Amino acid sequence: MARVSQAHLDARRRQILDGAAICFARNGFHATSMQDVLKEVDLSAGAVYRYFSGKEELIGAIVEEVLGQVRDGFEEAARSRPLPPLDLLVVSVLARVLATKESLTVDGRPAFPRLILQVWSETLRNDELATVLREGYGAVRETWTRIVRAYQDTGAMRADVPPEHVARTMMAAAMGFLAQQALFGPAPAEVLGDGLRALMSVRDHSLVNLPETGSN
Amino acid sequence: MARVSQAHLDARRRQILDGAAICFARNGFHATSMQDVLKEVDLSAGAVYRYFSGKEELIGAIVEEVLGQVRDGFEEAARSRPLPPLDLLVVSVLARVLATKESLTVDGRPAFPRLILQVWSETLRNDELATVLREGYGAVRETWTRIVRAYQDTGAMRADVPPEHVARTMMAAAMGFLAQQALFGPAPAEVLGDGLRALMSVRDHSLVNLPETGSN
Repeated sequence: MARVSQAHLDARRRQILDGAAICFARNGFHATSMQDVLKEVDLSAGAVYRYFSGKEELIGAIVEEVLGQVRDGFEEAARSRPLPPLDLLVVSVLARVLATKESLTVDGRPAFPRLILQVWSETLRNDELATVLREGYGAVRETWTRIVRAYQDTGAMRADVPPEHVARTMMAAAMGFLAQQALFGPAPAEVLGDGLRALMSVRDHSLVNLPETGSN
Repeated sequence: MARVSQAHLDARRRQILDGAAICFARNGFHATSMQDVLKEVDLSAGAVYRYFSGKEELIGAIVEEVLGQVRDGFEEAARSRPLPPLDLLVVSVLARVLATKESLTVDGRPAFPRLILQVWSETLRNDELATVLREGYGAVRETWTRIVRAYQDTGAMRADVPPEHVARTMMAAAMGFLAQQALFGPAPAEVLGDGLRALMSVRDHSLVNLPETGSN
């Protein structure tokens, strides 16, 4: 009986978090009211306030969950041994992150990339959330710096570049790709993998002479 | 006399746009009121409403300006001939974008990257702005697809990857790096340049065998 009850509590909490995530992904944190959330989850105020004291607590719970899922996606992929080629590693990170909450949609598109963008924007005006975000980002950057150093140590990557700069660059590519999903619609992670593979083929410091096309 | 008057009008309009940009960068579009803008620019309502009918018109003007500046940064750099190595080209794009409105700050940091993040978030809930953003992104992507094709045509980059995927990847790296500036503070564009240069040195599909460190 106690177990059923706990399962019920968990499911109800999950239902509220998912409904709120859809509202926040759709309209942003500031423009979403608790009324919007109640309507989305189709529960009474009493039922929802039993789990969350208000919008701030809901925001905190969702931001922590989203950042945790992004961090897990980055870190799980980084645990593969032997380490795959860098392009495939990034594809696997992104595929994991994009698979998060796939069932939640806004206007027929995955809600999660939108939610990530809203979280970034919200952290700009909320110091507490900014600290959570900074710490999560720092942890992921450390993991990726270790990975980059491993590529460098085995001679698979030039070693005269600070590994932290490479880690930041890989994360920038993944973050920007997520932003593109939110802004312009879904695209498979392989698109980014293709791009990285092409970059990996560029001959260092080759100059390209182009005729003036006048079409710029 | 007419010229002085036009210069005055332009300067006043500039002053309002810059003050509003600071407010929006600080707090986002939705949480900023016209009252906040009036306070920031230190002008009367009458003076401001002579230039902009209200917050929506201000938002539209600022979004168009921000996207125009990002687009110009991307496209001007793309016009250099001979084309520089890809890493340096991206550094030059980013340096141009980061130099935009350098004098406008929030909490002592450049306001522009924050403003870009707020624009992304705002376009998620505003179809009109989303169209403007999508068109600007489409134009930049076309320019970059042409550039990538030029690298491929001269043999500087493998040609078996769709150039559009590489263009998206380069833009993702730049967009993600801008998001990092907004979220975690300024970093020089050379950090991304370093990362791309390291990527360009990676041997294609080399496997890296790592011992289990247990520190993940």
